[in-house]
Amino acid sequence: MAKAAEQFKVTPWEVKGKVDYAKLIKQFGTEPLTDDILNRIKKHTKELHFMLRRKIFFSHRDLNWLLNEYERGNKFFIYTGRGPSGPMHIGHLIPFIFAKWLQDKFTAEVWIQLTDDEKFLFRKEHNDELEKFTSFAYDNALDIIAVGFDPKKTHFIIDSLPGHAGLQYREAVKIADRITVSTAKASFGFTDASNIGQVFFTSIQAVPAILPSVLKGKNIPCLIPLGVDQDPHFRVARDVYPKLGFYKPALIHGKLVEGLLEGGKMSASMPHSAIWLTDTEEQVREKIIKHAFSGGRGSLQEHRKLGGIPEIDASFRWLQAFFEPDDKKLQKIYKDYKSGKMLTSELKDYTIKKVNAFLKEHQKKRELAKKQIDKFLFKCC
Amino acid sequence: MAKAAEQFKVTPWEVKGKVDYAKLIKQFGTEPLTDDILNRIKKHTKELHFMLRRKIFFSHRDLNWLLNEYERGNKFFIYTGRGPSGPMHIGHLIPFIFAKWLQDKFTAEVWIQLTDDEKFLFRKEHNDELEKFTSFAYDNALDIIAVGFDPKKTHFIIDSLPGHAGLQYREAVKIADRITVSTAKASFGFTDASNIGQVFFTSIQAVPAILPSVLKGKNIPCLIPLGVDQDPHFRVARDVYPKLGFYKPALIHGKLVEGLLEGGKMSASMPHSAIWLTDTEEQVREKIIKHAFSGGRGSLQEHRKLGGIPEIDASFRWLQAFFEPDDKKLQKIYKDYKSGKMLTSELKDYTIKKVNAFLKEHQKKRELAKKQIDKFLFKCC
Repeated sequence: MAKAAEQFKVTPWEVKGKVDYAKLIKQFGTEPLTDDILNRIKKHTKELHFMLRRKIFFSHRDLNWLLNEYERGNKFFIYTGRGPSGPMHIGHLIPFIFAKWLQDKFTAEVWIQLTDDEKFLFRKEHNDELEKFTSFAYDNALDIIAVGFDPKKTHFIIDSLPGHAGLQYREAVKIADRITVSTAKASFGFTDASNIGQVFFTSIQAVPAILPSVLKGKNIPCLIPLGVDQDPHFRVARDVYPKLGFYKPALIHGKLVEGLLEGGKMSASMPHSAIWLTDTEEQVREKIIKHAFSGGRGSLQEHRKLGGIPEIDASFRWLQAFFEPDDKKLQKIYKDYKSGKMLTSELKDYTIKKVNAFLKEHQKKRELAKKQIDKFLFKCC
Repeated sequence: MAKAAEQFKVTPWEVKGKVDYAKLIKQFGTEPLTDDILNRIKKHTKELHFMLRRKIFFSHRDLNWLLNEYERGNKFFIYTGRGPSGPMHIGHLIPFIFAKWLQDKFTAEVWIQLTDDEKFLFRKEHNDELEKFTSFAYDNALDIIAVGFDPKKTHFIIDSLPGHAGLQYREAVKIADRITVSTAKASFGFTDASNIGQVFFTSIQAVPAILPSVLKGKNIPCLIPLGVDQDPHFRVARDVYPKLGFYKPALIHGKLVEGLLEGGKMSASMPHSAIWLTDTEEQVREKIIKHAFSGGRGSLQEHRKLGGIPEIDASFRWLQAFFEPDDKKLQKIYKDYKSGKMLTSELKDYTIKKVNAFLKEHQKKRELAKKQIDKFLFKCC
C-alpha cells in the first residue's frame, strides 16, 4: 500500500502533500539535472548560478539537445511566465532571477507570458473579473522588469491584450487542433464540469515556445525555465510542436516556491509570512521576527546545547533559496546554527538585513520600471 | 416507435435526414414566424422580403422583444456570418441578401464573422492548413460585399486575423468561463475525442453579438439572421450574455440551404449541380440542363397530360428561394408547370436566364469589391 508520504499530487493548479522530487522526476518522466549536464552548462557560463548548484532547478527535458544546438551555433531563446493572480512575493521572483542569469550568460531573447486569462478562468472567487487579473499582470510586470532584463531582448505578452491575444490565438488554434479533450482531462485532471476556457487554455500557454519562430519564419530552439508544476502543459504541447514543424522546447524545472520558502513544512502559514515585494523595512522585520518558522530550540540554554535545525528554519531556507548566493557564507551559517553557536535571533537578524537590502534596491528598480514597461510589452508587425 | 422520417438531426456541423421544420421548432424550443410577427415587421419595412413571405426564414427567438426595443428608439445591429470552407455557391448568399435587406430597412449596422478557425478545426482533410481557410475568408468576403452592404455600416471579422482575434479572444474567455464541457457536449454532440479547439470555438462565435456593445460601452440589441443549424451556438450563449450584463440577441432562423435548392431530395447531387458565384454563362447553362433535378415527366406527351411536379424540381425551387422575387410570376410558373402547360425545357430556360442575369451583375460587383475590401474589414481603436 502507498504510504501517506507518497501521496502527493502536482498539477498546474493544485499541489497536494509533501512533494518528493526524485519521485516526481519518475512520475513526470523528466531527467535529473546531473553533474554532467551542469558541467556542460558551466563550460559556457564559466560559473553556475547558485540555483543550479543548490538544485533549486533540479530536472530537465532535452537540455543536452539544446546545448548541442547551441554549440553548433543555433542559439536559443528563453520562454517563461507567470499567472498574475495577485501581487508578487519574493518566491515568485525565483524563476525570473534565473531566467535573467540565463539571458546574460547566453545573450538570449526572453519571452515572458502573463496569463491573466488563465488566472481568471481558474479563479476561486467567481465575482472577480478578467480586468482584475489584467491589472495584476501590469503590476507584476514591474517586479519582473526590476529583475534587470535587457529591454532590447525581452518581450512581455499579456494574454488578454488585443495586440497579444491576436498574435497568440492563430497559433493556439493550430495547437488546440492536435489536443483532444481526453488528453486534457488526463493531463490536467479536468472533468466535464470544467469550463471550455480552462480546457482550451493550455494551447495558449503553449504558443510563446514557437511564437518567435513563427514571427521570424525560421525554427529557433527554445528553453523554458519553469516551476515543475507547469510541466504538464509542455508534456502535452511537446507532442504537438513537431507536427507543426517546430522543435520541441527544452525545459528546466524548478522546485515549488512554497516548499522552498516554508521551512520544510507544508502549511497554511505562507500567506501570513510571505514577504511581498512592496513590503516596508518594518513589515519585513515584523514578519520575520513574528512569523518565520524557527528551527531553534525552546530556550537559549537548550539551543546552545542541542543546536538549531536549519533544514526546517524559514530564515535559513530563504537565505539558501534566495538571499545568500555565497556558498561559503551559507555553509558557515548552516554550521553555526546547527551547532548552537548562532542563535535564532541572530539568524533572523541576518536574514532581515539581507531581505531589506534586496527590497530597497528592488523597489527602486520597480519604480523605474513604470517608465520602461512600454519598451517591454511586445509590439508586433 | 419513431418513424424513419422523424430521424433527422441538425447540428452546426452535421445535418442528417430530411428536416421537418415544424418539429425542429419544437425540438429547439424556438417560435414560428407567425403572420402576426410578420405584420409587425411590415409596419416598419412597408413590404416583406420574399424570404419572409415564403417562409425561407421561418422561426425566431425574441423578435417581439427586439421590435419592442426598436419601437422605443433602441436600435439594433445585425450579426451574421459564414464558415469559409470553400468558394461560395448561390445558396450561400441567401442569409446575406436577407441581412442586407434588413440593413436597408432598419438602417442597421451589420457585423459579419468569417470563421476560418472553425472551418480549420472541423475540417475533414487533416492536411488542410488554417491558411487555406483564411484565404477562403478573403475570397468569400468579396461575394458578400457584392451583395451591396453599406461600407460605412458593415464590418467584417476574420477570426484568425491578429487584429480581429485580439478583440474577440478577451470576450470569448469571459463567455467560455460560463460554459462547461458538459454543456458543449450536450449541445453540439462533442465527445472526449473532440479537440479542445472545437470545444472552445462556440465562445468565439458568440462574441460579435456583444462586441459592438463592448466597444461602444453601452448595451445594444442584436438581431442574428442565421441558418437554423447554427441555433445551438446561441442557445448556449444566450444563457451567458445576461450574466455578463448584455441583452440576449434575437434570432431569425433560415431553412437549410441544401434542402431549399435541391429539388426536395437530400442527396449528394449538390456538389455537381451547385452553381458557384464565379461560374460562366456556359457552365450555368450546362449545369441546369444536365444536372438540375427535374420534376417533369418522362415524355412530352406524359408531361402535357399529367403535368410536372414543381415541389421537387430544382429549377423551380431556385426560382422560389432566390431568382423570382415576384410572387405573381412565381405563381404563374407553378401553375403552368403543374398543369403541363410549361415544359421542363422552358422552365430550365427561364431559370438559366435569371441565374445568368444575376451572376453577370454579381461578378461585376465582386470585381469592384476587391478594391473595397479594406473598408469592410473592421479596424479597431
